[in-house]
This record gives sequence, structure tokens and C-alpha cells, in this order.
Amino acid sequence: MQIAFLIYEGLTALDIIGPYEVLSQIPGADIRFVAKRSGPIVVDSGAFSIGTEHKLADVPRPDVFVIPGGIAGTFAAAKDPEILDWVREAHAHSRYSTSVCTGSLILGAAGLLKDANATTHWAAKTLLEQTGATYTEERIVVAGKIITAAGVSAGIDMALYLTAELVGPDLAKLAQLSIEYDPAPPFDAGSPAKAGDAIVQRALEEFAKEL
Amino acid sequence: MQIAFLIYEGLTALDIIGPYEVLSQIPGADIRFVAKRSGPIVVDSGAFSIGTEHKLADVPRPDVFVIPGGIAGTFAAAKDPEILDWVREAHAHSRYSTSVCTGSLILGAAGLLKDANATTHWAAKTLLEQTGATYTEERIVVAGKIITAAGVSAGIDMALYLTAELVGPDLAKLAQLSIEYDPAPPFDAGSPAKAGDAIVQRALEEFAKEL
Repeated sequence: MQIAFLIYEGLTALDIIGPYEVLSQIPGADIRFVAKRSGPIVVDSGAFSIGTEHKLADVPRPDVFVIPGGIAGTFAAAKDPEILDWVREAHAHSRYSTSVCTGSLILGAAGLLKDANATTHWAAKTLLEQTGATYTEERIVVAGKIITAAGVSAGIDMALYLTAELVGPDLAKLAQLSIEYDPAPPFDAGSPAKAGDAIVQRALEEFAKEL
Repeated sequence: MQIAFLIYEGLTALDIIGPYEVLSQIPGADIRFVAKRSGPIVVDSGAFSIGTEHKLADVPRPDVFVIPGGIAGTFAAAKDPEILDWVREAHAHSRYSTSVCTGSLILGAAGLLKDANATTHWAAKTLLEQTGATYTEERIVVAGKIITAAGVSAGIDMALYLTAELVGPDLAKLAQLSIEYDPAPPFDAGSPAKAGDAIVQRALEEFAKEL
């Protein structure tokens, strides 16, 4: 089973590393980080790069693919014909086509979310709707073979769900135990409803700065 | 505030990317991925590399540092004098010295956990005790300025705790909301107590294969 993780300049690293750390535990999984070019690709913060040898053209028809989000980098990727062509071709043959966070904007830009239920980072719902998708406020949204996850860390939950779909719940639980995913955040501020108005307002201001 | 993330061959990527995605949101944080050499460093699965320009010698005294785990790679790092010297020097001047998963074995190998409470991946507790630490079954263990987190995903919780210690709870909540960390795993199998004996046994067998 070939599982491709799309890498592009300016991606949010946890969007892709969360699902990777789960899905790479599937026995026999052929994990491919794919990018327009081989070599280092700088993440959104600029602090480091992710390197891969696999170009898009080398992995045209993965069984499963995962598209991460970001902000400026995602907007650029969502306008890149080479990336969009790859996404469409991969989706035409995939078993599951997935995204994390604003990665769904790239699925949308490829024309794959018209009238489909989908999710994204909570602060990007209007942007998602502009692609024709029906924004759905859930952590994971399954629409046929397209699975979209909410912001950043939701990719871990999505990957556990997907692992169970692909190889059954026992291997999903094994992956969960292996990464000791028994979350215990010291605060309960992970969604707009829980974080409170002041924190939400501040987050929206930060988000707006990067648009 | 300079925050260093130790990168070495064979690390588990989520151990470092989870905390990074939280701590990099601290306003003005100077984020440095540091390694023995600049250039790409391959992660434990071999699927991709993490690239950085910062060598250990360039970042000798970060305010905070995070050490990730792995398996074979961690054992090698825990015997590497250059890495251990860096850890000891950094710890001598740090505000917080932290680890995720089996990263605590490196703190231990550097002699920093003698008679200290600490944690690690649940399957590595005996290895941790061999360094002189007192294994403590908690998701985050604070012992003075040393903070150790349990397996892999626990680094996210640790980083939120640490953010609150460094810059207050509001900025920690803002970071949590930004990565939409409102966990909803589809299974409740993230700890040995919850996963059930059969899954735990299988996880231990997988772990033993890599030792």
C-alpha cells in the first residue's frame, strides 16, 4: 500500500508529521514524501526543511495521499498547476484522498470538493466555502473517499480513523499505543467554543496578519 | 528566547515536531533545530530527512532545549560524546531542559537524571531506570527545570505546559487553539492500561524487534 504525503514550500510541519507517524506503522506501507522537486523544502516558520527524493511524477497513483496545510504556502500550492494536476490524477485512482487543516483548500482548488462536506482549520472556513465545499464543523469529515481533518493536530485523529478503515481497528489501536496518544492537554482551549472570545479574537488577528 | 530542538539520525519526527509547533508560536522565540552537522538528517523510518543549518557548537546555550526520542538512533545518540557534552553544557545554563519519549534516555546518559523523577515511552521504563532516574508514570514529569514527557505525542502536552511556564497561560491557550488541539481519537487505546493486554503484548513485540 503506497501512501503519499505532499510536501510543498511553507507547509505546516505537524499537519503532515502527525498522520505520517500513525500511517507509517501500517505493516508493509510504502511511505513516500513527495514534492515538486527533490531536496529540502522549507516549512512555514522557516526554521527547518523537510527533504525527500520523490518527485510528484514518480508517485502518480498512491493508494492514499495526505495534503497538509499552511498559510501563504498553501495559497501558493493551491494555484500551482503542477500540484493541482497531481492531486486530481492521484484522486482519480486513490483509495482515500485526505487533507489536514488548510490542506483542504488545495483539494478544493483542484475541484474535488464541489458540494461535498469538508472541514479545515476553524479560522479558514470561509476560504473553504469559496471552493464550493460545505464547511462542516467536525474534527474529521468523511465524504466518500475524501477525508478532511480540522486544524493541524486533527490529522492525528484522522490518521487513526483512516488506519482502522485500511487495516482494521486493532492496528489503529496499536499505532495509537505506540505513539502513546492518550492526550492530556493542560488547558481546554483547543476549539473556538472552548478557548473563549478573547483568545479566539487574538487568534483571528494572528491569522489575518499572515493572509 | 532561544529554543533549541536536537536533531539526530534516527529520531522519531513527531517527538520534535509536536513541541516545535507549539513553542514556535511564542512571540519572539528564536527557534533553532540543531544537529552535529548541517544538512539533511534522516528520521527513524527512513522516509524523509529534516534539514537544518545550525550545528551544536553554534547554539551552545539555548534558554530551552527539547530532546526527541527514537529507538536505534536514540541509543546511538546516548553514546555520542559530542551530543552528551552539548546536552550537559546546555543544561548547565538552560531555563528548561526537556525531552520527549525516549529522549529522556539521552538526558539520563548525560548524567542529568540521577535520582530524579522522569518519564519516557511506556515501553522504555526499564531503560530509563538504568540511567538512575526514578520512572514516574505520568504524561509530563517536572523535576526542577527538567521536564520529561511520555511517548511521542506527549510532547504536545508538554510544550503547552512549558509555554504557560515561559509566557503565561493565555499564550499557551492561543497556541493550543492555533493548532486546534482538541483531541478526539476514534479509539481509547493510548496507554497500556487502556489498550488491553493483546495490543500491549503486540506493541512490546514490535518494540523488542527494534532493540
